[in-house]
Amino acid sequence: MTGVGRDLSVSFRHTIDWSGHSTRPAKADLSRLVLERHYRVLVSRYPVLAVPTGSVGARRKEFDRRIELSTTLAPGAAYRADRTRVAELNQRELERFAARTGRSKALLDRARNVMPAGTPMSWMSGYYMHPQLYVAGGEGARFFDVDGNAYVDMNVADLSATLGYGIPAVEEPMVRQFRNGAHYLLPTEDAVVAAHSLGRLMGLPFWQFTLAASGANTEIMRIARHITGRRKLIVFEGKYHGHIEETLVKFDGERVVPEYQGLSGRRSEDTIILPFNDLDAVAAALESREVALVLTEPALTNCSLVLPDPGYLEGLRRITAETGTMLCIDESHTFSFAYGGLTRLWNLQSDFITLGKGLGSGLAFAAYGMTDTIGDHVEKHLDILHRTPGIGLGGTLYGNALSMACARAVLEHVLTEDAFNRISALGSRMADGIDAISRDLDLPCRAFRIGPRSGLCLTPELPRNYAEARLSMDLDMLDARRVFMANRGYWDCIVSAGPQASFAHAKEDIDGYVDLMHEFMKNIK
Amino acid sequence: MTGVGRDLSVSFRHTIDWSGHSTRPAKADLSRLVLERHYRVLVSRYPVLAVPTGSVGARRKEFDRRIELSTTLAPGAAYRADRTRVAELNQRELERFAARTGRSKALLDRARNVMPAGTPMSWMSGYYMHPQLYVAGGEGARFFDVDGNAYVDMNVADLSATLGYGIPAVEEPMVRQFRNGAHYLLPTEDAVVAAHSLGRLMGLPFWQFTLAASGANTEIMRIARHITGRRKLIVFEGKYHGHIEETLVKFDGERVVPEYQGLSGRRSEDTIILPFNDLDAVAAALESREVALVLTEPALTNCSLVLPDPGYLEGLRRITAETGTMLCIDESHTFSFAYGGLTRLWNLQSDFITLGKGLGSGLAFAAYGMTDTIGDHVEKHLDILHRTPGIGLGGTLYGNALSMACARAVLEHVLTEDAFNRISALGSRMADGIDAISRDLDLPCRAFRIGPRSGLCLTPELPRNYAEARLSMDLDMLDARRVFMANRGYWDCIVSAGPQASFAHAKEDIDGYVDLMHEFMKNIK
Repeated sequence: MTGVGRDLSVSFRHTIDWSGHSTRPAKADLSRLVLERHYRVLVSRYPVLAVPTGSVGARRKEFDRRIELSTTLAPGAAYRADRTRVAELNQRELERFAARTGRSKALLDRARNVMPAGTPMSWMSGYYMHPQLYVAGGEGARFFDVDGNAYVDMNVADLSATLGYGIPAVEEPMVRQFRNGAHYLLPTEDAVVAAHSLGRLMGLPFWQFTLAASGANTEIMRIARHITGRRKLIVFEGKYHGHIEETLVKFDGERVVPEYQGLSGRRSEDTIILPFNDLDAVAAALESREVALVLTEPALTNCSLVLPDPGYLEGLRRITAETGTMLCIDESHTFSFAYGGLTRLWNLQSDFITLGKGLGSGLAFAAYGMTDTIGDHVEKHLDILHRTPGIGLGGTLYGNALSMACARAVLEHVLTEDAFNRISALGSRMADGIDAISRDLDLPCRAFRIGPRSGLCLTPELPRNYAEARLSMDLDMLDARRVFMANRGYWDCIVSAGPQASFAHAKEDIDGYVDLMHEFMKNIK
Repeated sequence: MTGVGRDLSVSFRHTIDWSGHSTRPAKADLSRLVLERHYRVLVSRYPVLAVPTGSVGARRKEFDRRIELSTTLAPGAAYRADRTRVAELNQRELERFAARTGRSKALLDRARNVMPAGTPMSWMSGYYMHPQLYVAGGEGARFFDVDGNAYVDMNVADLSATLGYGIPAVEEPMVRQFRNGAHYLLPTEDAVVAAHSLGRLMGLPFWQFTLAASGANTEIMRIARHITGRRKLIVFEGKYHGHIEETLVKFDGERVVPEYQGLSGRRSEDTIILPFNDLDAVAAALESREVALVLTEPALTNCSLVLPDPGYLEGLRRITAETGTMLCIDESHTFSFAYGGLTRLWNLQSDFITLGKGLGSGLAFAAYGMTDTIGDHVEKHLDILHRTPGIGLGGTLYGNALSMACARAVLEHVLTEDAFNRISALGSRMADGIDAISRDLDLPCRAFRIGPRSGLCLTPELPRNYAEARLSMDLDMLDARRVFMANRGYWDCIVSAGPQASFAHAKEDIDGYVDLMHEFMKNIK
């Protein structure tokens, strides 16, 4: 390692407690050691949460528990509304919600006979705590439930419907292509045009298409492993990269383990989890040159919002390049934050870019970009059916003609710089409104803000990593706010994300959301 | 283990060579031992291919190589046309093909600047050996390339377009739903109706939806592992279950290893690969009760066609149930063989059923069914976002409203018993035609036949497992046949599958295919 990477690595070595070891730590201990270091950084910021005794793992675990209970344990560290008021309001609103959604309840009763929890995909049931809602239709920025209630949608299907409901510029090419054949297992010219558009927009020249970002990240890992001949992967605490075994992991205080139930745990061993915004930790982890890929969002979006420190992403690029490690910027969520994603906004360099969620169209397609060197490598290692095994890429419906026609239309006609400027202005308006709420109610809070995305940050300073981000959120309060808003015509964002201005929102929609948040915060203060 | 399972296991133990071990083999050796046994079965059928010396692994590897070279090594074991004639015909046809597809060539030159190999998904380039074809559109059973050549499609996008191009009964609901919103991350009534239809059709009561069978099989594995508390998986040689690390494996003569490049290999360790149609081997592998799931197609469809012996699938159900192992019938391909798939045709029992490829619509959706016990378990172990980690299921676009509207329409209006009877009659017609070719040309060959699917089997007896299936295929001949047919207006099936009558085919389309196959076989004989 040379230059900054080496320096960082050295300084890192001097700050951690080697627990009596005078030599370099065993590779398997790396995650533990960097998280110990990270624990110290956290404690220096939130000393009231410090855990004085126990092993590193036990202290970190207890610190995490204290964050969860931070209302009582962390006065001043994060704003927490009175639990009783939140619970009472939640209860009142739940009763009101149930009274308004009788047809949803009846449909749920039918649905539970044929689908677990009554939904076609389980996390439609798992991201909120009020009774199940069924949707009848939508238009622009609103959808309607089966009882006829309308909701301004601030969740936009977790950023898969940021273009709004019903997109005229996509409908015509979609219908035309369906009539002509949705899929031939052969390419169409639309794919060529869409890939070319993506290259111009995002800066990487070669593209492949999948159905979801999970599939894209899976292929990126395979390519990176094949090129580097290495197996390990680095992701950052608070990340989301899809439902892939390697990335569905957490650090349990002792080691990297599966984050959900039912995972085999085999591939957890290959993943190193580090805190975001800690270049020293990454440099140390890259030193042994066993890491194939650093996979990161440019800003963490699945634990409220964590922005990179100035120079952090540039540093990642530098130290990955210096150690022969590939870098992937996962823009599945952040692509919706700016024209050309944060890659273009911040002029980021990487080996791969991941895009997902149908670019906000609500349709099932995703894509990934790569450098010309990588594109050339992939072409040279194609799988030739029953002859030469190549890199394990592709799926039968990946890059299907229908999705390519839609992708082309979205890129050519919908995702314009003007449209992004418009939603960014709406996002600023929302953030300004949220800051005004904090001032009006004298809360030690502030707004998240990046392009169209905002939200209420419950700490006086913006979080720089996952542990701090958890302090910035209050799940009970968010649950109560969701049902409060639902009863007043707004569908709030999921607890892990923030509200976002979509292509279909008007100023009035944003203002209405801010007004409701204001009213809610007054109610629970 | 009780009953049949135990008996089979005992008989298995007595037939294999324990290499001096008098006790039960180490679990890690299981795959090796059952494949050794399988090697003996193969050799008894094809003694001319026997390998007299070397380790079991080396002998099996050499046997596999001999199968590949079976033209010279296995006279009588399988029909092989004269290599020189095949190569000469292929060369002539390739020249003709290139002359007809100048616009495809020009598009490829553009496409290679923006996509590896010029395609949006790499195996669009990897399943045939002639120059790349680009498609302009399609109608019914035909598609048209960018040079204006028409092709009757016998590949139907590897069974993802079995309903034909442009499906009127699906277009209207698709357009209506797109206008109303493609996805809300909330359920619609269409999902309830579609799940109910699937339950009636397939016999399992609870359903979840994904975008592809890979996603469905991934979730099935996670559920099965969670319920059983076991990690191992059994699949069968010649299988295809999607692009999942655990199933992208092969036996290399010594151990189970990744089948493609770029895979980590971590999860290969959890997979046991056994020969199809060998209940003894399965019983032995289940004896230690470490296997969570047996994942099988009801007939192997990705290495020509391998039908189950009478009683084999019933035996699988019995011995999995006896050992607390879950059984999944993967109908991703075979669903297109009969109304309600082979599950309904053969009255199969299982814990899970996998469906994929948009049920033949060309659209990106898939589904899996489960018993009521499993559905109840899944509902009780839902992931509650940021609160209680549940089983790792779901993806943002899984079960999206657009796909549910299309799934409902396909199930209600397209996949009728009458339609399946019609395509089965076409399949029989094709198989009869292929048998007539063998008789006319005095070839030691016969037709594959199951419902709409047929194909030319190059061995006098139908294959019962993967190794025999490889004898039944001749890749060089199939490559030459593909380009021969393409030049005459037919798009042949991929080499690993067989031609299949689609919902859009007419008798004349099938007759034309058989006539071309006849002409081709005369040419190379």
